[in-house]
Amino acid sequence: MAKEFNWFVRVYYEDTDAGGIVFYANYLKFFERARTEWLRAAGISQQIMTTQHQVMFVVKGTAVEYHAPARLDDELKLTVVVERLGRASVQFVQEAWCGDRLLATGTIKVGCVGTASVRPSAIPAEVLAKLSE
Amino acid sequence: MAKEFNWFVRVYYEDTDAGGIVFYANYLKFFERARTEWLRAAGISQQIMTTQHQVMFVVKGTAVEYHAPARLDDELKLTVVVERLGRASVQFVQEAWCGDRLLATGTIKVGCVGTASVRPSAIPAEVLAKLSE
Amino acid sequence: MAKEFNWFVRVYYEDTDAGGIVFYANYLKFFERARTEWLRAAGISQQIMTTQHQVMFVVKGTAVEYHAPARLDDELKLTVVVERLGRASVQFVQEAWCGDRLLATGTIKVGCVGTASVRPSAIPAEVLAKLSE
Amino acid sequence: MAKEFNWFVRVYYEDTDAGGIVFYANYLKFFERARTEWLRAAGISQQIMTTQHQVMFVVKGTAVEYHAPARLDDELKLTVVVERLGRASVQFVQEAWCGDRLLATGTIKVGCVGTASVRPSAIPAEVLAKLSE
Repeated sequence: MAKEFNWFVRVYYEDTDAGGIVFYANYLKFFERARTEWLRAAGISQQIMTTQHQVMFVVKGTAVEYHAPARLDDELKLTVVVERLGRASVQFVQEAWCGDRLLATGTIKVGCVGTASVRPSAIPAEVLAKLSE
Repeated sequence: MAKEFNWFVRVYYEDTDAGGIVFYANYLKFFERARTEWLRAAGISQQIMTTQHQVMFVVKGTAVEYHAPARLDDELKLTVVVERLGRASVQFVQEAWCGDRLLATGTIKVGCVGTASVRPSAIPAEVLAKLSE
Repeated sequence: MAKEFNWFVRVYYEDTDAGGIVFYANYLKFFERARTEWLRAAGISQQIMTTQHQVMFVVKGTAVEYHAPARLDDELKLTVVVERLGRASVQFVQEAWCGDRLLATGTIKVGCVGTASVRPSAIPAEVLAKLSE
Repeated sequence: MAKEFNWFVRVYYEDTDAGGIVFYANYLKFFERARTEWLRAAGISQQIMTTQHQVMFVVKGTAVEYHAPARLDDELKLTVVVERLGRASVQFVQEAWCGDRLLATGTIKVGCVGTASVRPSAIPAEVLAKLSE
């Protein structure tokens, strides 16, 4: 999974605001859709993590820079790259593109926590193996 | 609780879409905020319903007619009226107003279900008493 | 376009609520995504309607019945059928399915209005032709 | 406006996700509600900025650290502090609290841009005066 992963989303009315552009908070949703599909493509099911390992990924920090706006009907390409992989955390760098325009860059810190304790918990070995492939 | 209850919400960017108006699906959110505050004002806690009675309210049906648009910064008045009260269901009629303009009218059917079974379950007596006051 | 059109969406965290299921208001978003893609497949661009014909589609009424819940990671199939086609309005019937389970049924009334006047305006002939195909 | 400003929001189902907690992206909405009310309290209308000065505030960057989760029915206190005030930009530091628990800390960079050009534009003098009070 070291190489880049791309996920495409379309901009609908639900994503836009009265400024006529995609509401900035929604890039966090787009980035998460891409990470989720990236996990799925890597054979990692968040539901299996929950039911079999009693752990789940939670977002600990997000930082997004907005470079250019997206508009209704635009098709956006979202990228996913693992920047840092810890024992109980993963840091992703993600970008949103419309054609050759870079719209937004995000750094998303995700932690692995116990579903009951909500305390940091080691990423299950099989998941870690897939993440570091 | 037979008389009308009003709840006020402000329109922020998050509520609007590229048409420059409140995105129609968001009236369901506004209506729910008003119903929740109406329940709270009636002394009904949805969390206590869940923890003590193992039941919760779920929305079974929604019908909304949109009459006029709301815009950024508008302050909306939401009304809540119980139209029909059953053993395991409540039907609300709700309106959204901006000043003296009626923006939207909604009929919301809510069912009471077991938190585990997600099957219809009688509304707890004390809740029913408060709803029918 | 008389025959059924299907559009698939995946359920992400953003779509769910603390009940562990898809938040009911979000079916309106799913239905709209399907209608938008249905229009796109029919060769109807909402942006061209706006720029060339100075009209746009606005949602005038929505009615949704919720039959069964959807959960995280579910893949939903959305259907789109034109139930009634008027001079300045279209009524759609839409369904949300997860596998062979019917989750929700919606009736969505859409009006064609002038972008400036926001008053009812005839659907452009070429759009009407495509809608009635 | 140098001193802290507090704004309170209630957590509804719409704000939560299947993890049973407030969906992390929604803190950006809460922070914006607080900033908007802070501007309103300072006598700054974003609509007047748009109509009279042909400028608007746009979010250029957001960074949020999530410390603890919020749940359904929680009442959150949002703070707003201007950290840096430029000629065409404002940087806010904001916090979300539930009682004495700090839930999230955000740094929000807002730029002033022309409504037509969407290029950086000086914050109108009267707005700047109010921001630096």
